[in-house]
Amino acid sequence: MKALIYNGLDSVALVDRPIPKVQSPTDAIIKLTYTSICETDLHILKGHVPTVKTGTIIGHEGVGVVSEIGAEVKRFVKGDRVLISCMSSCGSCTYCQKGMYAHCSTGGWTLGNTLDGTQAQYVRVILADGSLHHIPDGVDETALVMFSDNIPEGFECGTLNGRVQPGSTVAIIGAGGVGLSALMTALLYSPSVLIVIENDPNRLKLAGKLGALRLINPDEEDAEGVVKTLTGGVGCEAVIEAGGNPETFELAQKIVAPGGTIANTGFHAEKVDLHLETLWYHHINVNFSDIESAYRVFGSRYENSVLKMVVAM
Amino acid sequence: MKALIYNGLDSVALVDRPIPKVQSPTDAIIKLTYTSICETDLHILKGHVPTVKTGTIIGHEGVGVVSEIGAEVKRFVKGDRVLISCMSSCGSCTYCQKGMYAHCSTGGWTLGNTLDGTQAQYVRVILADGSLHHIPDGVDETALVMFSDNIPEGFECGTLNGRVQPGSTVAIIGAGGVGLSALMTALLYSPSVLIVIENDPNRLKLAGKLGALRLINPDEEDAEGVVKTLTGGVGCEAVIEAGGNPETFELAQKIVAPGGTIANTGFHAEKVDLHLETLWYHHINVNFSDIESAYRVFGSRYENSVLKMVVAM
Amino acid sequence: MKALIYNGLDSVALVDRPIPKVQSPTDAIIKLTYTSICETDLHILKGHVPTVKTGTIIGHEGVGVVSEIGAEVKRFVKGDRVLISCMSSCGSCTYCQKGMYAHCSTGGWTLGNTLDGTQAQYVRVILADGSLHHIPDGVDETALVMFSDNIPEGFECGTLNGRVQPGSTVAIIGAGGVGLSALMTALLYSPSVLIVIENDPNRLKLAGKLGALRLINPDEEDAEGVVKTLTGGVGCEAVIEAGGNPETFELAQKIVAPGGTIANTGFHAEKVDLHLETLWYHHINVNFSDIESAYRVFGSRYENSVLKMVVAM
Amino acid sequence: MKALIYNGLDSVALVDRPIPKVQSPTDAIIKLTYTSICETDLHILKGHVPTVKTGTIIGHEGVGVVSEIGAEVKRFVKGDRVLISCMSSCGSCTYCQKGMYAHCSTGGWTLGNTLDGTQAQYVRVILADGSLHHIPDGVDETALVMFSDNIPEGFECGTLNGRVQPGSTVAIIGAGGVGLSALMTALLYSPSVLIVIENDPNRLKLAGKLGALRLINPDEEDAEGVVKTLTGGVGCEAVIEAGGNPETFELAQKIVAPGGTIANTGFHAEKVDLHLETLWYHHINVNFSDIESAYRVFGSRYENSVLKMVVAM
Repeated sequence: MKALIYNGLDSVALVDRPIPKVQSPTDAIIKLTYTSICETDLHILKGHVPTVKTGTIIGHEGVGVVSEIGAEVKRFVKGDRVLISCMSSCGSCTYCQKGMYAHCSTGGWTLGNTLDGTQAQYVRVILADGSLHHIPDGVDETALVMFSDNIPEGFECGTLNGRVQPGSTVAIIGAGGVGLSALMTALLYSPSVLIVIENDPNRLKLAGKLGALRLINPDEEDAEGVVKTLTGGVGCEAVIEAGGNPETFELAQKIVAPGGTIANTGFHAEKVDLHLETLWYHHINVNFSDIESAYRVFGSRYENSVLKMVVAM
Repeated sequence: MKALIYNGLDSVALVDRPIPKVQSPTDAIIKLTYTSICETDLHILKGHVPTVKTGTIIGHEGVGVVSEIGAEVKRFVKGDRVLISCMSSCGSCTYCQKGMYAHCSTGGWTLGNTLDGTQAQYVRVILADGSLHHIPDGVDETALVMFSDNIPEGFECGTLNGRVQPGSTVAIIGAGGVGLSALMTALLYSPSVLIVIENDPNRLKLAGKLGALRLINPDEEDAEGVVKTLTGGVGCEAVIEAGGNPETFELAQKIVAPGGTIANTGFHAEKVDLHLETLWYHHINVNFSDIESAYRVFGSRYENSVLKMVVAM
Repeated sequence: MKALIYNGLDSVALVDRPIPKVQSPTDAIIKLTYTSICETDLHILKGHVPTVKTGTIIGHEGVGVVSEIGAEVKRFVKGDRVLISCMSSCGSCTYCQKGMYAHCSTGGWTLGNTLDGTQAQYVRVILADGSLHHIPDGVDETALVMFSDNIPEGFECGTLNGRVQPGSTVAIIGAGGVGLSALMTALLYSPSVLIVIENDPNRLKLAGKLGALRLINPDEEDAEGVVKTLTGGVGCEAVIEAGGNPETFELAQKIVAPGGTIANTGFHAEKVDLHLETLWYHHINVNFSDIESAYRVFGSRYENSVLKMVVAM
Repeated sequence: MKALIYNGLDSVALVDRPIPKVQSPTDAIIKLTYTSICETDLHILKGHVPTVKTGTIIGHEGVGVVSEIGAEVKRFVKGDRVLISCMSSCGSCTYCQKGMYAHCSTGGWTLGNTLDGTQAQYVRVILADGSLHHIPDGVDETALVMFSDNIPEGFECGTLNGRVQPGSTVAIIGAGGVGLSALMTALLYSPSVLIVIENDPNRLKLAGKLGALRLINPDEEDAEGVVKTLTGGVGCEAVIEAGGNPETFELAQKIVAPGGTIANTGFHAEKVDLHLETLWYHHINVNFSDIESAYRVFGSRYENSVLKMVVAM
């Protein structure tokens, strides 16, 4: 089969590889229909992810069809159309029992990292019962690829960790894949104020199209000042940090309201300043995580169609 | 001034009464702009509410203008346009500290109950700082009367106590004022299934207009069967009981999913059967309360406009 | 091997059966060290549990040693000393993803019910990774048998569902295995009032020995009156119903405080009365479930020793 | 009366002042029985708290007797023995409605800050209904002074914000008044591991006496190494930061487990480093606040005696 491998610093290669086979009775082999490129793949190319060895097939997102199935997989059969989660999970270890699937002791982020990934014609998915999801009839599979990683990341690490509620005042810093996913899922809660802050005009335009109630380009407007004006001087109850650098984290601290939350959604390459000298008494909650459980929640609700709603946007 | 009093069993009378005066420095006198009739007023006429003495001015809902203000009221001044909460609260007693404002040791439901109420040209509101809310500019005050009681009841006792979340499957039994309020506020959470069950065709039609995703008239369809069909055989995660009689509570138990919640929103005149013999292991949560804190939450968020959103529906 | 089977109404028999074998790679065979009799077993004998067929080996509690292990079991090896949960769980189905392990679509309560159980020399445990727990060194295994069912039931369905917190006022109705387990685990939260109500003097005495702060024999004292006196007239914030009949559920409703919780811990053979006509506005939460997730929580914390603490009592 | 005033940088003075009088009907005048010195008073002397003007009577902790009472105070009468909260609150403003009493729009920290404080023979307490608490009979009033500030700070900002539960692994960094208060209140939840890290041998000894399960002097032991060893290599689920400087916050990040919480309990004079570059995917919650609501919770439970239990330690 054809596969895209990490070929050492700043290099990928399209190569021929044998089609993977079931190695354990809990494995599934998926023939990919669609896959996608994540910003994390770019970090891999830059050498930021030392667990990825040269020669590994990259990619951790995808939808496809089950082409081979282990004897102990209970929830899937050959021919099933499935969505692949970027996190594999056993469901039984101490972390899985806590809902921290990303920290699964035999799973977690393995695809395109410590095991061959999805940017290939076939992929072997371990712990298939806990790592795949049925695709409902009639869903657009090109949209669905977003649910391997981006949408659950925006939902769990942004919207849920940000504790967005009806009437909340929300600011999202950064309108990349995760920031936009936070935007789409925050809207499910009917916030009263939903501001997106982003200096790329195209991304900002897309945020507006997806429903952001106010757009701020910090190169053109004073972001802190505008947020304060829109919120009666106090800032936002939920600040979702999807920028991932010290400057965006600094802005998050300037625009969070007393009693509010800063929900960090992803990778940071450097430490940041935390301004306890000014914020210590302001009852702030700062949290940060990778996807853990939301995908599972989402997955279990698919038939209930929360994802259909997002897909429909 | 003109006032409507409870005149003994099945009787009201329109009478002349003196305009009330500030009796305590924490009182406010409100000149009413709009008031409304609640189903509870009908219970009063039937003699179901023994705390209401003959001669009391009835009514616990209203909007108006502050015409006189006690010296210790800090949040309001003469001339302010205000919404009157059906619950008065001091904010300092043990129950208020727990957010159980309806159980306030010096407040709670007093208007049109143990004190003269709002179906008059003026009303004295005790504990004004904790019992009134500023009206934002531009809001339709006829719609706003609903926020004295019905909307917060539907929101707190229905939607919040029912733990509605994005993707939830929700059934509302009864489409009176509280049931419809639960409907409007449940929609703020983007449920995937939202069924309203009601045998009055006009109410049912209104529920459809307000956004219910499926309407059931139990006189024409098998409500339990339809709910099961719509939910893959398991029933709804949130069942909001706004019917208030043994039959509707019985139906609620038939259509709640394992792990689900039955949120009872109001008055019952009789005891009901609780079927622990079939439900005991199904991980069900049944809760019941009058409005406690949601109105306060709503109130504090008014500027943040969750209410504007409901008003806009 | 020797095994105790359900031999039809009111009858058990000690018989010879072949030692079970691994049938699926996720199975484990356990050689039992200790097992025990649960009140549920008595219900089986009375024919109350129709899923138990004549000839089934009964019993769902036990500790033992892994004697044979399926190829796909990851957390256990032959020779491991293990505790058997009364609930088997896959960790991957929709219910397991929600933490409702008792409702696992391929597990749940199977031991001594739809599959042969633990009152034998050996037992086959399905879904071993999600259904067994390692035994820490130095723990008394005779005490540990209580952790297959009773202790997690009292903890999850009583203490956790009852929302016991430091300073809470707590009443436990019934001092059988589950009631006493609720008592031991409620004490971990340092309640200020902890009353046990039970008419069996021996059980009551044991409750006192385990730390109950006040004992009431309802045959000798007015239970409602005493509880009210001890709680300033308002009743208890958490009422744990471990009596299981209409009379004990009735008492629970008389002694719960406004804003409080009635946590029902187990089986009821009959429906009960729910007094919404008096309680509807009192902000009460009634919940009922079988063990779901607490055991897993307990299990994952074993090394952290909360169970050691209970064992030490 | 005699009073201790802030007399400018590094200086206090004992002076004569008139006994304060009721200025508003919601005030109370308290004749002090006991008061105490808080570390915050030392910050005032160093000029770190610019809101404190020269000439202000310092002190925000105390117990005493009501000597004069405003006409609108409902919960207290002349002669009542009371505990003074360091936070005054109206109970009605937007922040009080959210339980953020420290941010009360007309109260918050005023005593010994923007108004005269408690290090005097008499003090005027504003918003008396929300700012005083009845003292139960038989409680040692010298111990009770700790409940004006230290104990609720340790309880709310340490134990509650740290989400301590039965079986939790807990580390407390710093054993001053707040750290020890966190220790005493964390013990109410029966943690399985409770480590105190402090380099003052006397404080450390006191922590041991109060029930810490393991003491670490970081000048003598490798704190990170010991914590990791005691927790199976993963660190503590709850890390309570009561040291208040960049070094202690750094240590907190080294010893927090994946999925854990860092609860910061008080003042920081400088910004700190937050190591998102290593922690971003570890599902960590960092929170920081001053006392908000816990004291109120504590207060309302006093009769239920959680405080009696702490006093008894």
